[in-house]
Amino acid sequence: MSDFSITRLEAGSADFAQDLDAVLAWDEAEDAAIHGRVMDIIQRIRKEGDAALVELTRLYDRFEVANASGLELSREELKRAWNSLPSDSADALMKAGERIRLYAERQKMESWRYSETDGTVLGQQVTPLDKVGVYVPGGKAAYPSSVLMNAMPAKVAGVPEIVMVVPTPGGETNPLVLAAAYLAGIDRVFRIGGAQAVAALAYGTETVPRVDKIVGPGNIYVATAKKLVFGQVGIDMVAGPSEILVISDGGTDPDWIAMDLFSQAEHDEDAQAILVSPDRAHLDAVESSIRRLLPTMERAEVIRASLSRRGALIQVRDLEEAAQVANRIAPEHLELSVEDPESLAGRIRNAGAVFMGRYTAEALGDYCAGPNHVLPTSGTARFSSPLGVYDFQKRSSLIFCSPQGADQLARTASVLARGEGLTAHARSAEYRIAERT
Amino acid sequence: MSDFSITRLEAGSADFAQDLDAVLAWDEAEDAAIHGRVMDIIQRIRKEGDAALVELTRLYDRFEVANASGLELSREELKRAWNSLPSDSADALMKAGERIRLYAERQKMESWRYSETDGTVLGQQVTPLDKVGVYVPGGKAAYPSSVLMNAMPAKVAGVPEIVMVVPTPGGETNPLVLAAAYLAGIDRVFRIGGAQAVAALAYGTETVPRVDKIVGPGNIYVATAKKLVFGQVGIDMVAGPSEILVISDGGTDPDWIAMDLFSQAEHDEDAQAILVSPDRAHLDAVESSIRRLLPTMERAEVIRASLSRRGALIQVRDLEEAAQVANRIAPEHLELSVEDPESLAGRIRNAGAVFMGRYTAEALGDYCAGPNHVLPTSGTARFSSPLGVYDFQKRSSLIFCSPQGADQLARTASVLARGEGLTAHARSAEYRIAERT
Repeated sequence: MSDFSITRLEAGSADFAQDLDAVLAWDEAEDAAIHGRVMDIIQRIRKEGDAALVELTRLYDRFEVANASGLELSREELKRAWNSLPSDSADALMKAGERIRLYAERQKMESWRYSETDGTVLGQQVTPLDKVGVYVPGGKAAYPSSVLMNAMPAKVAGVPEIVMVVPTPGGETNPLVLAAAYLAGIDRVFRIGGAQAVAALAYGTETVPRVDKIVGPGNIYVATAKKLVFGQVGIDMVAGPSEILVISDGGTDPDWIAMDLFSQAEHDEDAQAILVSPDRAHLDAVESSIRRLLPTMERAEVIRASLSRRGALIQVRDLEEAAQVANRIAPEHLELSVEDPESLAGRIRNAGAVFMGRYTAEALGDYCAGPNHVLPTSGTARFSSPLGVYDFQKRSSLIFCSPQGADQLARTASVLARGEGLTAHARSAEYRIAERT
Repeated sequence: MSDFSITRLEAGSADFAQDLDAVLAWDEAEDAAIHGRVMDIIQRIRKEGDAALVELTRLYDRFEVANASGLELSREELKRAWNSLPSDSADALMKAGERIRLYAERQKMESWRYSETDGTVLGQQVTPLDKVGVYVPGGKAAYPSSVLMNAMPAKVAGVPEIVMVVPTPGGETNPLVLAAAYLAGIDRVFRIGGAQAVAALAYGTETVPRVDKIVGPGNIYVATAKKLVFGQVGIDMVAGPSEILVISDGGTDPDWIAMDLFSQAEHDEDAQAILVSPDRAHLDAVESSIRRLLPTMERAEVIRASLSRRGALIQVRDLEEAAQVANRIAPEHLELSVEDPESLAGRIRNAGAVFMGRYTAEALGDYCAGPNHVLPTSGTARFSSPLGVYDFQKRSSLIFCSPQGADQLARTASVLARGEGLTAHARSAEYRIAERT
């Protein structure tokens, strides 16, 4: 462990802003070669449909089927996966699913209207999307919890058809993932992945239906494909590496804090775990806990790499300054491991999810507290929100003018349209004026 | 006018789906040269800041200042523009602004929370974005109504700082635009445009503040720059050409319908205006109105080009089929020029804004009905919504576990985390279990 080190910063130092920028720096690699290959794959799927999908799945996933119908998994197969789950896993998934559903219900947007005295009605009509695609990665990054987190808000929104795609390299399926798909009530599942799966969902093939939005995490090919099909379909955020920021007042067991940092760092070497505290002795104690606990971790190498490359322990003057640091970072996950998390939470503007108090470990939120674990990363919490039911609903403005209302509005519109030189607009409005004055 | 023709389709014909696809086809040009030039501009602004901004503004806008502070317009200058407006224009802008504000107030999202029996609290904290940038085009496409539509929802959301950028080619300012900026309460205005203005807002320079989201329309350089800085900042939709779909039951004056179609077609040659009706004689009558009225229009050439290239008159079996066509097209603007627009609106799932009844011309909504005129184009109403207050707010999930709540959740999280092989997650959760059972 002698080679382990973690960045220490002081918010009061002259170079702090620059040093913090360096710790946070994350430049998404723009790989022109990958971009070109993904464009080719999308073009092939658009032109050749199922035939290309079958061929690319054979090529990239080493999974061979006689025709595209062989790519679909039946509801019966999902049910078998569910029935073969150990009972503690099934029980835990059901508990998590139920809490995710209950929280999501609160997010549902409702239509509204109001009438004006002249009889004109204005409103907003909310409808669910028609069809949604959920991308689920294959192999070791396949998480049943992610299936629930991505699919259940769509279900609660009332999306009539949810289509899941999941690659099955070498033909191998992941029973936990299929069981979660069964529990989430996913309508159709296709054994496809990569850019070809994203293209199939975006444009449709003879077998795979075209959807209106694609959500879910994936590798660089999937992320690139999602960016390229955006506009043709909606997409969720393109996620960067996962991050946690812990603000501790010094009163939490240093081992707890260390393990909370580990729980983020174990995701991958690019994950970021940062602790902020006004208490220097506490920062030292957590660093000691890290050194003592690290060798006991199953994913010690990943954690070590993540913490030494991108981790940091930051000393601040007080909790007010800690809140400022948090707002500057806009972390995906923010733990307020302090005596009075309510007052601190009120000072937080930018964060994907806020875990309040010493007992609220981020891991509880990752699995089963209820709120979604798909959260804005890389500082995008400055302007975006957790995945939610609202991502699977859309709004249409409603305008229903009474003849009297139209008369009044038309007079205003006519002046403005003529001011902008748009005379067809003006004349269209003027037809609705009851009588010229 | 002998050379004018407009596409006629019948929804019942065998080739209808294909023919409709051909009418709707719109491939956004992906220009590699523009992409490269925009990337260079962004890099220069990031590296050289103000110096590059001054130089590029001199180069592209032929507007020269000694240093970057000369790029800013003072609140005093905006006020002068407001005071010099003709009173009918000022009055119309104020009426429009007030209605936009009243509608926007209804969209405001509020924070919420709920408690569980064991004392655990879950919620969603809603906060405004810190800083927003509004891009306003220069020259002939500069619309004061767009300034109000883009800025007022941000104002209602409570955004503390709204920064507007508007190019002033040759140093010429647009008094209507500046007056609208004054009315909307914009905090700072810079006389910059193009990719350099987008880059300055996204990354900040010594003079221009870095914002959290950039909204507003622009040319291909602006649109490309917005796509490239997305992730660094939020952006609104990248808009395609404007569209209207009118569903008429045959009972509306054909001249009114023709003028409503013109009001869309006059925007530019790529704009799309489509009429759907079950009444063949009515379609003929509207076509006659188009031929008769077209020569009287100031923007006749643009309208003629738009209608012959991208317009269509579509005959359907009944209004039910008309609704299906509308849901397939997912138009930006949808007029329901029918006797019973309520029952038809209930069958519409995909549309940016719905204008109900014979009196509700789209032009009324463009200027002053209240709902936003920034709407999803090119079929993206399938998955996205009008610009609204919600675009300038964001949500953070709140989780505050009581010790008892944490104990229960930790048991579930532990099972799921171990199932996924994430043992640091599991151990972090297990620290919160009160006593092992």
